[in-house]
Amino acid sequence: MLCALLFGGPLCASAQTATPASVAKNPLGDYTELTDTKPHDGAEVWSRMKKPVELVWGNTDTRYKKLDVPKLGEKTTLWRAKAWKGERINGQAVLWTREALDDVTVTASDLRGAGGAVIPASAVKASFVRYVMTDELNKDGKGGCGHRPDRTAWDSSVVADVLDTVSIRDLQPRSAQPVWVNVWVPQEATPGTYKGTLTVSGRNFKPMKLNMQIDVVDRTLPAPEDWKFHLDLWQNPYSVARYYQVPLWSEAHFDAMRPLMKRLKDAGQKVVTATIMHKPWAGQTEDFFDSMIAKTKKIDGTWSYDYTVFDKWVDFMVNEVGIDRQIDCYTMIPWALSFDYFDQATGRVLFVDAKPGEQAFTDYWLPFLKDFSRHLREKGWFEKTAISMDERPMKSMQEAIKLIKEADPEFKITLAGNYHDEIQADLYDLSIPYTHKFPEAVKAEREAKGQVSTVYVCCTEAFPNTFTFSAPAEAAWLPVHAVAGNYDGVLRWTYNSWTADPLRDSRFRTWAAGDCYIVYPGDRSSIRFERLIEGIQQAEKIRLLRGELAAKGADTQLEELNETVALFTPEGLEKSQMEPSAMLTQLQELLNTL
Amino acid sequence: MLCALLFGGPLCASAQTATPASVAKNPLGDYTELTDTKPHDGAEVWSRMKKPVELVWGNTDTRYKKLDVPKLGEKTTLWRAKAWKGERINGQAVLWTREALDDVTVTASDLRGAGGAVIPASAVKASFVRYVMTDELNKDGKGGCGHRPDRTAWDSSVVADVLDTVSIRDLQPRSAQPVWVNVWVPQEATPGTYKGTLTVSGRNFKPMKLNMQIDVVDRTLPAPEDWKFHLDLWQNPYSVARYYQVPLWSEAHFDAMRPLMKRLKDAGQKVVTATIMHKPWAGQTEDFFDSMIAKTKKIDGTWSYDYTVFDKWVDFMVNEVGIDRQIDCYTMIPWALSFDYFDQATGRVLFVDAKPGEQAFTDYWLPFLKDFSRHLREKGWFEKTAISMDERPMKSMQEAIKLIKEADPEFKITLAGNYHDEIQADLYDLSIPYTHKFPEAVKAEREAKGQVSTVYVCCTEAFPNTFTFSAPAEAAWLPVHAVAGNYDGVLRWTYNSWTADPLRDSRFRTWAAGDCYIVYPGDRSSIRFERLIEGIQQAEKIRLLRGELAAKGADTQLEELNETVALFTPEGLEKSQMEPSAMLTQLQELLNTL
Repeated sequence: MLCALLFGGPLCASAQTATPASVAKNPLGDYTELTDTKPHDGAEVWSRMKKPVELVWGNTDTRYKKLDVPKLGEKTTLWRAKAWKGERINGQAVLWTREALDDVTVTASDLRGAGGAVIPASAVKASFVRYVMTDELNKDGKGGCGHRPDRTAWDSSVVADVLDTVSIRDLQPRSAQPVWVNVWVPQEATPGTYKGTLTVSGRNFKPMKLNMQIDVVDRTLPAPEDWKFHLDLWQNPYSVARYYQVPLWSEAHFDAMRPLMKRLKDAGQKVVTATIMHKPWAGQTEDFFDSMIAKTKKIDGTWSYDYTVFDKWVDFMVNEVGIDRQIDCYTMIPWALSFDYFDQATGRVLFVDAKPGEQAFTDYWLPFLKDFSRHLREKGWFEKTAISMDERPMKSMQEAIKLIKEADPEFKITLAGNYHDEIQADLYDLSIPYTHKFPEAVKAEREAKGQVSTVYVCCTEAFPNTFTFSAPAEAAWLPVHAVAGNYDGVLRWTYNSWTADPLRDSRFRTWAAGDCYIVYPGDRSSIRFERLIEGIQQAEKIRLLRGELAAKGADTQLEELNETVALFTPEGLEKSQMEPSAMLTQLQELLNTL
Repeated sequence: MLCALLFGGPLCASAQTATPASVAKNPLGDYTELTDTKPHDGAEVWSRMKKPVELVWGNTDTRYKKLDVPKLGEKTTLWRAKAWKGERINGQAVLWTREALDDVTVTASDLRGAGGAVIPASAVKASFVRYVMTDELNKDGKGGCGHRPDRTAWDSSVVADVLDTVSIRDLQPRSAQPVWVNVWVPQEATPGTYKGTLTVSGRNFKPMKLNMQIDVVDRTLPAPEDWKFHLDLWQNPYSVARYYQVPLWSEAHFDAMRPLMKRLKDAGQKVVTATIMHKPWAGQTEDFFDSMIAKTKKIDGTWSYDYTVFDKWVDFMVNEVGIDRQIDCYTMIPWALSFDYFDQATGRVLFVDAKPGEQAFTDYWLPFLKDFSRHLREKGWFEKTAISMDERPMKSMQEAIKLIKEADPEFKITLAGNYHDEIQADLYDLSIPYTHKFPEAVKAEREAKGQVSTVYVCCTEAFPNTFTFSAPAEAAWLPVHAVAGNYDGVLRWTYNSWTADPLRDSRFRTWAAGDCYIVYPGDRSSIRFERLIEGIQQAEKIRLLRGELAAKGADTQLEELNETVALFTPEGLEKSQMEPSAMLTQLQELLNTL
């Protein structure tokens, strides 16, 4: 094959298949999906195809099945979409074939507008959609929490989710191959209509073309770093080191994380996830989090702290990646109240077991918090750093807060938990489930004080969520849902706590499949992640339009906008009886025409 | 009881019995011995005593039984002994009683000589001898090595060995209480005869007196730090921390070690035992040795080393205790080739498994050895520090030596192992079993080069040894034995690797009882240790007299001395058919009269 010459190494399937077994274990290049064991269209259905290969535009709400003839209404070869300047929009084409296709590639042309205006082909990303094993909600349909020791108790199937970086593929006979198209309209684009084509070509068939037409609206979406929507997906550097088989915190590790974290930054992420103790979440993920700060108890009874890893990680995220708004440090009150330190006397890592309020807890944390404050101020990071907690008993949280304030009264504190009137004022960033509302006066006061108030999403929510089996529209619906609930953003507990074989199998020993991660190894995005970004962009557009309409006193339009946004609540859903995807279409049309 | 007023806390039995349970577990003050289950003299034997209590001088070669009427020849109330100025001499009195005795104490008077000369009472130490559980040699009589999982397979009994620091005791009816007397003749004492008394008194009997007469010879034994005999008993600081229940390397730990290590220094110890890795001896002792130097592998791949513990320990031993001749660092080639380091990336202690000659072994040791050399030179300790090994396969030892020399060609190296012609020249200090002889030319060459050549003693030797069941004379015989074999001293593999309950039970899961330690917790010496010092003093006296006699050409006397010393060899024993104790008596008489 010529792919190495045509496409370069990293994206080349054949180049990757020649790599040693150690890489085959955790593939970064091409890989073989798990077998879809579900019933699918047989040869007789596929034989009814009028042409051996077909290519049309589908929609972004559907996870097209791999072994079924796609069920499409009118077969269209034109994708028409509207976008603000600076906005990213998604389309999905579907290729399906009766025969084997060799060396299939997809290329996008420049999108050309009037008077020589152009959106360059480099702004158009076309990715093969790949299939991953998923499961389903708990049998009661109420969520995806709990241990799943017996996989047969949850139905499994493969679903389209991974957006591959491998750009050349062989297709087997009687299979569908969706192609995800993402256009990032430049901020400096001239408003107007742009046209271009998407070409699918290969070795043993004639090139096929689809048309694209983007109407660029004369409004500008700011760059992601300027978005106000507070996105917080927890990063897991330990997963990356394990999957990429590189030494933790080595240059190779940072090289592996760079595109992954830049992708997160481009989604408007505001927070760096940092860990200040061993197993802040009791090692619940495939790769447990460890402490980024080594605490040494010296033989004279004093402590010393090694910030090398913390500094390198934070510096990387803040200065190199550009996620620079907030640094959340987990945690002083983990579920297992056992705290690691290196004991200079014995040369061993030991653990102190202590509850908040106990002397041993204070002895461990107070000197650290004081030194940490000093260090953060020295680095210029103090103002953006928070000591972060998960929901724990009230007394524990209060004792922890007391101690933090004793160390430095200006320390920021965050909580991912429930709403508690007693402590909310102390929490710079408070993330609570949608079922917990901020009282209106409290929310206003928090806003006035510059405090962040987000909605917390994990396995608990059946809808909207970003499991691998969730309807793609849910990911886009979620941020608007947050805005509709008067939250400042969304905290979803993980960005990339990968499972053992994340590219092939999104199921995990606990929680519904896909709960642990939303992007894939090898710098691969997902349908879920692209649609989440779509939703965040709508949230930003709502904010900008609300401001603009209020400023010019366009009350009718503002009311129309607010009414549409209000649909994105449990009550709105109930009352309108609309599908989330239809609701999004309606909202987007409004945001693009107001 | 009034003991607190009379004797002060630490030495007071009653004060100690009031201490909490945690101290009772590892007693430092008074304690209850294990029961002697052996047959012993019954009431009818004891009833034949003519007086209810008796006190006479016994000898230092006998471990008097606790529950037997002592078997003594002529009952003497006068102890006559000869000593050089600066020499320590031992005597043993025996007290035995038909009735219970309360609050028994022993006091020594000043020893007075002619013209107002005096050896003050403070130079005379009288200690109650206590009983410890022992076992025996292996059934083949050939040594004490090997695991002893089934205690019943070795006969056990209690034997007199511990020299107590508790100075007031209640004696049970029908029991013997030996009293060990040690007189440290001041170096500035006027030669001549000194007389004094030893008084035993108590609450329910009349004080009893014994006489002491020391003839101080006009020769001076130098202070222990100036002895040439190379004594090397490995110290175990970890045992002390555990037994005393104090944090490792804390001030309390050093307080506990101070008298213990000063006692060792006063025996002429030349070497500080230091450890540079986790479990240099695979954790074979009750308390495993750990690394005194923390090695940190940083995320940039370089290493950093924390010498805090090493420096504190060495500084304590060298500058405070005064054991300042040599610092032996164990080990690069342990039995289990697994090497600890703190991994900055993961915050964990990890181990690298590597054999000498492998790249991973070099990667671990070479940067350390280089930095260690730099650090030692900075501290002014380089000249006295050695990288120390135990016997390992020749190839391993050669690879280790090569690496050490690559790091710093001037590094000293020691081996406790067998004689190997191939590497002996590289070994600054080589300790070998008595069965391995240094070829005469090699020994001379080593002497000329200032290299140390000692005899190694462990569980292998049935005789002479310092097990708790060994005849007391063996401990004194051993150093002379070393001199007779043309060795520079003795390496016995441990000074204080205490068993779980060392005061009461000297048996261990491996090796014959007493192999692991020769002194006891609570700053207690032993019959074995005092007699070992006696033997080392004879070795020094031999050295000094040989020099003196050679200098003045007293060939006859020199020959007589050398012939007597030659008795202390396997051949001498065989040929003379003398008891070791008698041989020692003959030697001492000669050394005091030549």
